[in-house]
Formats: sequence, structure tokens, C-alpha cells
Amino acid sequence: MIEQEKDLQQQRISADELMQWSAAAFTASGMNREDAELGAQVLLRTSLRGIDTHGIARIPAYLDKLRGGEVDPLAQPLLESRHGTLHCDGRKGLGQVVASRAMEAAIAAARTTAMAGCTIRNSGHLAALGMFVLQASEQGMFAMLCQRTPPLMALPGATARAIGNNPIAFSMPVADGPPLVFDMAASIVARGNVLQAVRDKLPSIPEGWAISPDGEPTTDPAKALAGAMLPMAGYKGIGLAMMVECLAGSFSGAEPEQNRNTGTAGSASDASAFLLVINPELMFGRTAFDAYSGAWLQHYLQASGTSGRYPGQRQAASEAERRREGIPVPAALREELRQAGEKLGVSFRW
Amino acid sequence: MIEQEKDLQQQRISADELMQWSAAAFTASGMNREDAELGAQVLLRTSLRGIDTHGIARIPAYLDKLRGGEVDPLAQPLLESRHGTLHCDGRKGLGQVVASRAMEAAIAAARTTAMAGCTIRNSGHLAALGMFVLQASEQGMFAMLCQRTPPLMALPGATARAIGNNPIAFSMPVADGPPLVFDMAASIVARGNVLQAVRDKLPSIPEGWAISPDGEPTTDPAKALAGAMLPMAGYKGIGLAMMVECLAGSFSGAEPEQNRNTGTAGSASDASAFLLVINPELMFGRTAFDAYSGAWLQHYLQASGTSGRYPGQRQAASEAERRREGIPVPAALREELRQAGEKLGVSFRW
Repeated sequence: MIEQEKDLQQQRISADELMQWSAAAFTASGMNREDAELGAQVLLRTSLRGIDTHGIARIPAYLDKLRGGEVDPLAQPLLESRHGTLHCDGRKGLGQVVASRAMEAAIAAARTTAMAGCTIRNSGHLAALGMFVLQASEQGMFAMLCQRTPPLMALPGATARAIGNNPIAFSMPVADGPPLVFDMAASIVARGNVLQAVRDKLPSIPEGWAISPDGEPTTDPAKALAGAMLPMAGYKGIGLAMMVECLAGSFSGAEPEQNRNTGTAGSASDASAFLLVINPELMFGRTAFDAYSGAWLQHYLQASGTSGRYPGQRQAASEAERRREGIPVPAALREELRQAGEKLGVSFRW
Repeated sequence: MIEQEKDLQQQRISADELMQWSAAAFTASGMNREDAELGAQVLLRTSLRGIDTHGIARIPAYLDKLRGGEVDPLAQPLLESRHGTLHCDGRKGLGQVVASRAMEAAIAAARTTAMAGCTIRNSGHLAALGMFVLQASEQGMFAMLCQRTPPLMALPGATARAIGNNPIAFSMPVADGPPLVFDMAASIVARGNVLQAVRDKLPSIPEGWAISPDGEPTTDPAKALAGAMLPMAGYKGIGLAMMVECLAGSFSGAEPEQNRNTGTAGSASDASAFLLVINPELMFGRTAFDAYSGAWLQHYLQASGTSGRYPGQRQAASEAERRREGIPVPAALREELRQAGEKLGVSFRW
């Protein structure tokens, strides 16, 4: 009975149909057909790969931003190359379009030069960074992508949020399997977990997640929300966040004022980022790359025991299963998508 | 009394005199004058900056390796550029010399191209990565350097060491202060802490440091030594180590067999690494870089409270103090250096 109820709430919808609906909603928001399909495709794939928090669940918020003018539906990212490095001005376009185009340009550059870097500024929220690095590895490339977020993290004793939790993702091709894809933020857990605890009126959150505004460790969801998230691994998490702040912020060409943006990560419309693509073929050749990578990956899997799996395998399995069976969409999200569709005259019929 | 005893044991020796002795010891080991001075200078500076575990304390071991032939005193690193990326074959030379030369070449390249990458293979142990990235930032550059180590880290449940604790360091110039330098490994603590606990016959180590060979968490120093170190932040530490394994290993041109080297990190004589230098001047200009970096660094320091200090400041203060007052050298290390000097006919008179 409970299982059945769960099934009803998590209705499966075919990826193709969701893709068509999403692209239609973006088109109805003023985007051209090509960009609308690209944006929809990235978000659908995020959901296919099981990253439900960063996939189609973000569409209602993005549609709001397109309507409100915070994201420009007609923006065409401007790419320029200077001194061997690419720079992408997103011109406030949808992040999924901006980052895909930047990655595409870097992949193209890495066909003739072994390493290609690209900065990104004035972009909409990028959501799941793993999607863009995966795009590179599916074309035989290594890619690293990091993004700065507004400050939301601090060490105990801090009286304000000191630095973003600045996520970093990378992907590499694997000779006989799906690409290895890894994606993390520098906070112990995402701030979304605290938001959810507040929404659900939970009495407490686990120790070690956050500090209150006076800098003291707290398990009170409301104090945590007003305070700051704790970094993973203490000062090491802060140090990594600083490296990303430098790569994705200081080098991006964004204005220092944008750095002071204190919006939450999910609503940033002036994201900046940094990506690096390396072509194994132009380093010591793909064969050498595969031989070396195969050696350490195989050792890792053996040492980790029979359940050893590398990052990205579970997502690849999810993608295969959901392409076949459809994407589970909870009732609350279906309702949100229905309402968003109504405003645009694009009926969501599930 | 105890203070006095401590002072006597931690005798201060002038950096210049230690530098001369170290360079003489390297020269007596077969290195040419220039390389001997470069190697000595890097290690001395590491001690000056307060990183006592990776500075002159390593000299006796390096002299042993030079004598034993594991490190080639006459090796000249071979640098080549292909498809816009530099590759450095260290030819089993002293790591301090190899990495300094590779960094020098990348800095030179970054004067005409905004980003310069360099792989390093067949190098002696690099010790403190922070020293090499600092070298770049003192010339106005951002630098990132990562190195693979033999496997020594694993998640609970693993029955063998799965992956290295693959350190990563970066440095960036700061307009009105010393460079920001950050240096970390992906294990919770360095394996040296377990080694020390075994040597000191301590009954236990803190929880969360290591697992025993059967994959269970342990506080027994001997079991921890036979087992594996735990990664920082769980799977995130493993993911970061994989990124470094790919950059510093898979792209380095080293043979897969070298990857299987199961020596301890401190004794690796076939280290491989990856470095990236970015020139702010050729991105959006040094002025834009400083304005943006100044904004986030100032915000970080203010939010963190009055004791806020950025990574690298304490080391810079140590360097100033120790240049003035000398480097404290404990009695046991003085004895080691004395014995090492005797074998080479280079008397250590302190």
C-alpha cells in the first residue's frame, strides 16, 4: 500500500516527452528553438542521471527568471580568445546554454592545443557542473569545471558567511566504461539540506553541518540558516574554496561588486566559472593515458572491495534505466511544472 | 629549566650557514654547484617558512638516495613543449631541482601565453609543494601544483590502500601582502603522524585517522600503519585524489608500472606531478585581478573575525623571524646531519 502510494506520487514520465515540454516552455519564454532545446537537454540529462535536485526541478525557477528579466532569453554568449585562453561573457543567458557553449569552444580548441582554458562570467546558474565535464569526456577529453558561489560557508568563530562553497567537478574518459565524473562542493553538506530542515520544521540538524550567526556550532535549523555552513575537512575546505574563488572569480573578468552578491547559490544570475579541457591525444597519446588510468582505476576498484565502483557509474546506470522507464517526477514537482506551464500556455498534462 | 633545556635542544642556526653546509653536502654527493645550491635553497626556505617536516629534515634521506644511486646527482631535467604544453622528464634528479626548473619554464611560458601547463615525471620526491607555487606568485603569477603519491588512503571497508593522498597546492599574488599559499593532502592527516605514534610507542591514535588491513576503523597505531589512512571528507577526499591522479599521473607520460610503486610517499624517487601557471596580466589584467581578489579576501578576513589570517601569512612571518634569528634545529636532527656530513667529509659543526 505504501509502495503503491509512493509509485503514484513518483509518476514516471518519458524523457522525450519531458524534453519536448521543457523546450516548449523555454521557447514560450522567448528563447530561440536551438537554445531552448540545449537548455532543456542539459536539465533533462541531469534528471536522467539521478541528480534530481539540479535537473527539471530547477525549471520553474528558471522560467521565473526568464519572465522577470533576470535571465535574458535572447542572450548569445560572447566568446573571445586572448593569449591562448578563451573568455565567455554569458550576457546573463541561461546557464545551461552558456556553459555548454563555453565547453564546446574549449573542446574545439583542445583539438589543436593540448590544454584549453575558458573563463565564464555573467552566466545564469549552472546547476550540475558534472553535466558539462561529461560533455567533454564523451568526446575523449579530460575536463575540470569550477564555479564560485556567493559566501555561505565559514569556520567556527566567524560572524558572517566568509566564502562560497565553490563547487568543483571533473571528468575523464575511461577506456572500457562510462566516463569517471566527480562533482563536489566544499561545504560538508549543501545548504539545501538546512533549507529543507526548516521547511519540514525538523527539531534539529546533525552536528557539524553549520554554525549560528554568533559563530558557534549549532544543530538548530533556523540558526543554521541565519548562520553559515561549515566547510568539509575544516581549513582544507576553505583552502579549496579559495582556489576556486581565484580561478572562477579573480580570473573571470567579473566586476568585484558581483563578488559581493549575497544571494543564495541557487538564485545567482551572474555566476562566474573556470573550465579546463585537456586532450589526452595531444599529451602522451590516448593509449598511454588509458594504460596509466586503467592501472590506477583497476587498483582502486580492487582495493575497495567487490562493491568498488567509480564515480559516474551509478549515474550512467540511472541514465540507462530512466531512459527506458521514464523519469520519476514527484507530485509536488508535477504541480509546480503544471502551474509554470499554464502561465506560458504550454500545458503540462501529467 | 625546562624552557632552557628546550632552547638548548632547539639550537638556532643561521640560514646562511645552513645553506652553505647543505649546498656543500649536495656538491660532495656529486651534484654540480648550481643544482646543489638550488636544491639547498628550496629545502632551506621550506624550513625558514616553518614547514620543519619537509625542509632540512629531509636532507639526510636525500643524501642517502644520492649515494645509493636512486637519485642521480648529475641528472639534467629534459623539458619539451608539445601542442602548447610543457613536459619535464626529471631523469631521476633531485625533486627540488626538477620542480624548480619545471616551474621556471612554465612561468617563462606564461609571460607570452596566459596559461601554461607542465607535466613532471621521473622526479625525486618534491617535499613541500607550496615552495614551488610560491616561486610563481613572487613573480606575479597564479600557480597550482599537484603530485601523485603511492596508494596509502582508502575508505572504510577497503582491504588495501586504494589511492595516494595526492597533495595539491596553489598560490596567488596578493596586492598588499605576501602571496596566499595553500597546500594540502587528501588524507585526514599525514601518514607521518601514524609513523610517529608507532615510533613513540603511543597506545592509540585518534579515531577517524585510519583503518586496519581488514578495512575496519582503528585507533591502534600498528594496525593503522599496516592499513590505510582515511581520506578527508570521505568520498570527497577520494574524488579529489582521483582528479590529481589523472592530472599528475595519467597525463604525465610515466609508465603504468610506476603507478604501482607501493613505496611510501616520502621515499618515492619516480614522482610525477602536474603544474599550471596563469598570468593575471594576460587574463583581464593585474589591476582587475587585484580588485576582484582584494574584494573576496577582505570579505573573508572580516567575516572570519579579528584573528582572520589568510594561508601563507603565518609562513611569511616565520620566514622573516627565522631569517633574523636562525632556524631552530632539534638535537636529534643535528646529530643526523652531523653523521651525514661525516660520510661526505663536510663537517656539520653545530
